[in-house]
Amino acid sequence: VSNLLVDIAQASHRVLLTQASPIDLRSNVAGKAYLAFRSGDRLSRPINKALFVFDENELLRRLAAFMNDRAAHLASADGPSTLYTIAMSYCAASDTVRLLDKKTPATYFEIFAGHLLADRFGANPQTSATVLNLDMKGDLPTDFIFDLGAGRSKFHVPIKISTRERVIQVWAHQRVLDGIYGAGRFRGLLVALTETKLDRKKLDVVEICLPDQWRVYQMFIAQLDRIYYLDPPAAYARLATGYPIVNVRPFSSFFSEADLLSGPS
Amino acid sequence: VSNLLVDIAQASHRVLLTQASPIDLRSNVAGKAYLAFRSGDRLSRPINKALFVFDENELLRRLAAFMNDRAAHLASADGPSTLYTIAMSYCAASDTVRLLDKKTPATYFEIFAGHLLADRFGANPQTSATVLNLDMKGDLPTDFIFDLGAGRSKFHVPIKISTRERVIQVWAHQRVLDGIYGAGRFRGLLVALTETKLDRKKLDVVEICLPDQWRVYQMFIAQLDRIYYLDPPAAYARLATGYPIVNVRPFSSFFSEADLLSGPS
Repeated sequence: VSNLLVDIAQASHRVLLTQASPIDLRSNVAGKAYLAFRSGDRLSRPINKALFVFDENELLRRLAAFMNDRAAHLASADGPSTLYTIAMSYCAASDTVRLLDKKTPATYFEIFAGHLLADRFGANPQTSATVLNLDMKGDLPTDFIFDLGAGRSKFHVPIKISTRERVIQVWAHQRVLDGIYGAGRFRGLLVALTETKLDRKKLDVVEICLPDQWRVYQMFIAQLDRIYYLDPPAAYARLATGYPIVNVRPFSSFFSEADLLSGPS
Repeated sequence: VSNLLVDIAQASHRVLLTQASPIDLRSNVAGKAYLAFRSGDRLSRPINKALFVFDENELLRRLAAFMNDRAAHLASADGPSTLYTIAMSYCAASDTVRLLDKKTPATYFEIFAGHLLADRFGANPQTSATVLNLDMKGDLPTDFIFDLGAGRSKFHVPIKISTRERVIQVWAHQRVLDGIYGAGRFRGLLVALTETKLDRKKLDVVEICLPDQWRVYQMFIAQLDRIYYLDPPAAYARLATGYPIVNVRPFSSFFSEADLLSGPS
């Protein structure tokens, strides 16, 4: 799977650089600058310039380092931009080839992040949990579940391109798992790409964030252990610094803290 | 608002009968027969024949009785089909006039059900709740909230054309209100039109229901007091008969039990 992801990243990156042209976007996000790739009347999603590796030779060097030791490379200073470039190359290239296809990038991103987690955990995910109760027995469909075995953590891992207004589902699913298995048995890790929104007429970019709602969910529905972003919005990153703590971090952090998270909670 | 709803129902019903033609659909739902109205290449959503008043004079009689005493008419044996015909006339007429417009019928249905509830409760709804906590103060946007005043119930009322996979949000919002205000302070009433799904090629109708997931939500996220349908699916209606109780009822029941629900819980 890593080989395939690297091949797809390389091919997508080449599609962007050779079959589309970059255009600058107006950023309404403090401290972030964006561009998009245009091909005919198709425009890619916004790309954060500081996180995207534009140079092909540099990307090839990164991909070789990634294949050589994935966890070490992703936990290094290069980690955030390597992760962002791999994920964004495919999603942006798809935007320039297929008009308004949202599903394929979402599926790709789930496989991308799910594989990296499985690789780091050394365990494959499941997508359902068993419900055992006095009156019912059955399988509840879930996002990815990683079970590292006896004495180690279990993880509930929803993976989304962006969270938007549906994110309350993530806390609600965490609550269901806490209810069925007991609080703390499953650590909730949400992985998201970005919260950018592009106005296709004005060509400006905003980040859509609802930090006060997240604080309410974290206090009253369930507790998520980590929310990882490939491009963390500042409004969410600040939630890690005050009560109620919502630990929003760059996805690259996962690759250094995975062992810590995998121990007894 | 009641006058407007009656005018819209009458005009929509006439559009269906005069500018569209009924075609029979194949029903895959036990005990229910459906038709749709077709106008050119536009096809309405499925209409449950047993609940829809086709005869215009009979509809006019119903609307006059409704205007004369809304609660009494809706609680009578005519209630279920009057409610269904008013709501479905507009939604189906909109389908035959505008291609795949989902938003207008959803907005209409929210106003329709919201008005009937406000009328019966004698209280207007709000759409936000105040969060007061040690570390934050603010307004949380919500579905309709009805506050009947000191010593009487408060209600949390989401209104949806159909629930589909997003219904977990309803239980999650109930959980947030329980957390902020204490369990039992807000009674959760969900109002939905139907769960039908039409295959536009095969012209057959199914009901999409996930009763086991609802039981899990009711056990582990929060407790909803009532789930009212204008066309209750049998798979959900059965949930009212075994643990965990999910009280699924026809919306017409609300108009007779509203006083009971409004007392101290």
